[in-house]
Amino acid sequence: MRTLADPDTPFAVVDVHKVRRNVERLATRAERLGVTLRPHVKTAKSLDVAALLHAGDRPCPVTVSTLAEAEAFADGGYRDITYAVGIDPHKLPRVVALLRRGVTLRVLLDSAEQAEAVAEASRRAGLRVPTQIEIDCDGHRGGLEPDAPGLPEIGGILHEAGCLDGVLTHAGESYFARTAAEQRLAAENERDSAVAAAERLRAAGLTVSTVSVGSTPTAHAAEDLTGVTELRAGNYVFFDLVMAGLGVCRVEDLALSVVVTVIGHRPEYGWILTDGGWMAMSRDRGTAAQAQDQGYGLVTDLAGNPIPGLVMTAASQEHGTLTARDGTRLPELPLGTRLRILPNHACATAAQHHGYHVVDGTRTTTAGAQVVQAFWSRVSGW
Amino acid sequence: MRTLADPDTPFAVVDVHKVRRNVERLATRAERLGVTLRPHVKTAKSLDVAALLHAGDRPCPVTVSTLAEAEAFADGGYRDITYAVGIDPHKLPRVVALLRRGVTLRVLLDSAEQAEAVAEASRRAGLRVPTQIEIDCDGHRGGLEPDAPGLPEIGGILHEAGCLDGVLTHAGESYFARTAAEQRLAAENERDSAVAAAERLRAAGLTVSTVSVGSTPTAHAAEDLTGVTELRAGNYVFFDLVMAGLGVCRVEDLALSVVVTVIGHRPEYGWILTDGGWMAMSRDRGTAAQAQDQGYGLVTDLAGNPIPGLVMTAASQEHGTLTARDGTRLPELPLGTRLRILPNHACATAAQHHGYHVVDGTRTTTAGAQVVQAFWSRVSGW
Repeated sequence: MRTLADPDTPFAVVDVHKVRRNVERLATRAERLGVTLRPHVKTAKSLDVAALLHAGDRPCPVTVSTLAEAEAFADGGYRDITYAVGIDPHKLPRVVALLRRGVTLRVLLDSAEQAEAVAEASRRAGLRVPTQIEIDCDGHRGGLEPDAPGLPEIGGILHEAGCLDGVLTHAGESYFARTAAEQRLAAENERDSAVAAAERLRAAGLTVSTVSVGSTPTAHAAEDLTGVTELRAGNYVFFDLVMAGLGVCRVEDLALSVVVTVIGHRPEYGWILTDGGWMAMSRDRGTAAQAQDQGYGLVTDLAGNPIPGLVMTAASQEHGTLTARDGTRLPELPLGTRLRILPNHACATAAQHHGYHVVDGTRTTTAGAQVVQAFWSRVSGW
Repeated sequence: MRTLADPDTPFAVVDVHKVRRNVERLATRAERLGVTLRPHVKTAKSLDVAALLHAGDRPCPVTVSTLAEAEAFADGGYRDITYAVGIDPHKLPRVVALLRRGVTLRVLLDSAEQAEAVAEASRRAGLRVPTQIEIDCDGHRGGLEPDAPGLPEIGGILHEAGCLDGVLTHAGESYFARTAAEQRLAAENERDSAVAAAERLRAAGLTVSTVSVGSTPTAHAAEDLTGVTELRAGNYVFFDLVMAGLGVCRVEDLALSVVVTVIGHRPEYGWILTDGGWMAMSRDRGTAAQAQDQGYGLVTDLAGNPIPGLVMTAASQEHGTLTARDGTRLPELPLGTRLRILPNHACATAAQHHGYHVVDGTRTTTAGAQVVQAFWSRVSGW
């Protein structure tokens, strides 16, 4: 029997009890809101984690961030996949290959040029690439504003080729909505933008099936999704300190952590050094812009109990520096002590690892150790 | 014949012509300074890149940042390896296993407790784990200051067990030395600290064979390494914008880049969107602290010619945002255009990829395209 004391550090751990709780929370919300949930699997990039989304039932619809994910999830039996990054026409052959395998792979775009490329690829392949038009609801990234002059033209190109599936938007700015009220407003704006764009297309005589919205903050804040057909969110399976800082979850909901070992002390500087640097945590400093900067992460003991006031404040490639917040009195953390670091950004930290050592934090040995039940691998690359 | 126009983006590219030039530059310096060069392979983590260090001759001494690297380089025929992260006693069985394979694997430590663990592991295994004492020359991370009271005691424990190999220091603060003069001072300080520590141990009757110093900035700045036996540096094989910002290299020396594709335009914001986000570049913002903040990287065309004033200013997981510096007039960069992004921090960007598409920038097709000669894989994990 292996516990978290056994594998060489650093390594990533996922607590399945917390994943299940996080998954159930959003599934219940989506059901109450009357929308299909289409989880974004870009955070965990794991078929095993994704299986918890549908509890062993028929694979659910998913969102992916790369074609490598789409291909891996297709191999794993998923048949309803949205690739939510604006399509590069060069990648259409891989899209067509997935469609030919019987996977409904939806692509995203925001220009007439891309729409022409999708229409042309569909004609050549003798099939229809189901396509969504990206709507920009908050000036965050790509997409057309709901009232953009070009929207009906793009819809028309896709409609004519039999490719128009719907519209999709993502409230990227909701990651900076600091209060519950701001997050509700972001959710309303996200919905309003997607529905307005869909209505414009319908008014132009086009058929819009899918109206897709979502981000982890807005998915947890939305109170009314009238006109929306599906909700996307990804980060929520693990959550992280950025989400806790926004109040979307509690620190105790964080299901991903990185186990590190104390390899040195610099009492003259107040530093505890570990073998977990940015290679294990990523360089993400997402909480730097929040009211409480959490450095590279908060520290817990190996059982997952927070060590109040202890923060990972610096990182080099394979070294982490832990520092106590002003006035904090720390427990003794001698050489060889294993700790867990809770990350700023689960998507970025998870991406630094091949996979996850899996525990259930509610099940321990008589000595209180968490048993490693499995190793779940990740999809990587593009 | 595949060129950089062929693989789906994003992907990492290494220009071997630039690697060879960078490698030769430091090899020439080390020879002139009369020290052994022990390159740190943590940047490229590639046996193929490392082969350029010794031009096909007998494998050179190397430095590694993980035991996974040590094991992969041992498999690749390297027999003289320094693991330059303070040893976690839990990892000693893997160290012993490598020693038993005939690899001289040196470990690093800075406490009596670690020294006792190394001595005990050596006794149990019936061998000697060659060990270096980490010296702190600039308050950057771990190590003992050269005049630390505990230094002779730790040396004594190692000496008695037959494990004392020498001392090692790393001028981590040299990454913040903004002028050539400051870098020379950092190099002198690095040398003086290591030599002083070695002399203290020798004065206590202990044998010190190795006196190891190095960082990419100090390795290129040192003018006199009297008393030093070996020089370490890693980043220099690729270089990056942080090093260019310090003046250690020129932008045209950067051998690593990431090829991305233009997937959208937001003229109202002045944005060009690409399919290369932080997953392809890392979250490293190392130039943020420099005089010229380079965002997530500078942009070149597919042939590697800089596009003056174009900077990758924002990143989400699979999206990059390119913005022109004030007043810059950009060339047309239509949908589908491929560009290369020069990274802030080569170690971090390289770590986001499975390996490298290899080109020689001086050899092109008649149409000017760079031919992909090979794919070189990386070691990853711990």
